[in-house]
Amino acid sequence: MAEPAVVNLKEKLALFSDHWSPRIAGELNGQYVKLAKLQGEFIWHRHPEEDELFLVLSGELELHLRDRTVRLREGEFFIVPRGVEHKPVAREEVHILLLEPVTTRNTGDTVNERTVEDLPWI
Amino acid sequence: MAEPAVVNLKEKLALFSDHWSPRIAGELNGQYVKLAKLQGEFIWHRHPEEDELFLVLSGELELHLRDRTVRLREGEFFIVPRGVEHKPVAREEVHILLLEPVTTRNTGDTVNERTVEDLPWI
Repeated sequence: MAEPAVVNLKEKLALFSDHWSPRIAGELNGQYVKLAKLQGEFIWHRHPEEDELFLVLSGELELHLRDRTVRLREGEFFIVPRGVEHKPVAREEVHILLLEPVTTRNTGDTVNERTVEDLPWI
Repeated sequence: MAEPAVVNLKEKLALFSDHWSPRIAGELNGQYVKLAKLQGEFIWHRHPEEDELFLVLSGELELHLRDRTVRLREGEFFIVPRGVEHKPVAREEVHILLLEPVTTRNTGDTVNERTVEDLPWI
C-alpha cells in the first residue's frame, strides 16, 4: 500500500465532473470513503447487508425512502440502514461523501445501466 | 434502534465544549462516526487492529507520526493505518469527525487518565 496521504475533499472533487460515478478517496476497516457528484434522479435500490452513509459537502440531497423523504444540506449526514430501499434525488448538483463497505455496489441488489463496477481511486 | 435521523454536524458540535472527549454521532457497519473538539497535545498511542480516519471540520490539526507530521486543514482527512503510532496536536481548537470501529479506545493500547470509556451518543 502506498504511504497514506492527506485527502483534500475540494481538490479531489475538482478532478471529475460526471454524475453518479463515485470515486474512491480512502479505505479503512473494510470500508471505502467515496466522493461523488449527483444531479437528477437515481433508481430505487437497497443494499441487503450494508449500511450506507451520505454526507453532503455542497448542495442539497433528497433521499427518498418508502415511507418518507429525508433532506440533507451541506454539513449533514444520514445513514441508510441495510435493507432499506432508497432513491437519491438531486434537483441541482450535489457533492457528497459516501461511506460503505468495499463490497457495496452503487445500485445495490439491482444491476442495470446505472451500475458502476470497479470504481476508480482518485 | 431508533429511526435514523439527519445529523447536522455544526448543531451537534454546538452541544458540547470539552476537549478530547468524543461523542458518537452515528453507527454503520461496525464503525462509529464520532465528533470531537481538540485543543492542546494528546498522548502517543496506536490502535493495533483498527484504522482511524480524522476529518477536520474547522481549525487545523497536526498528526504527529514517528517519521513525519501531517497537517490537516478544514475539509481534509487522513487515515492512520492500524498499528501506526500517532499523537494529535491542536495549537488552537479543532473540530473533527472521527471514523473507527466500535471497539476503538481513544488512547489505543494505552490506558491512562486520558482514556474515555463508554462514549456517549449525541
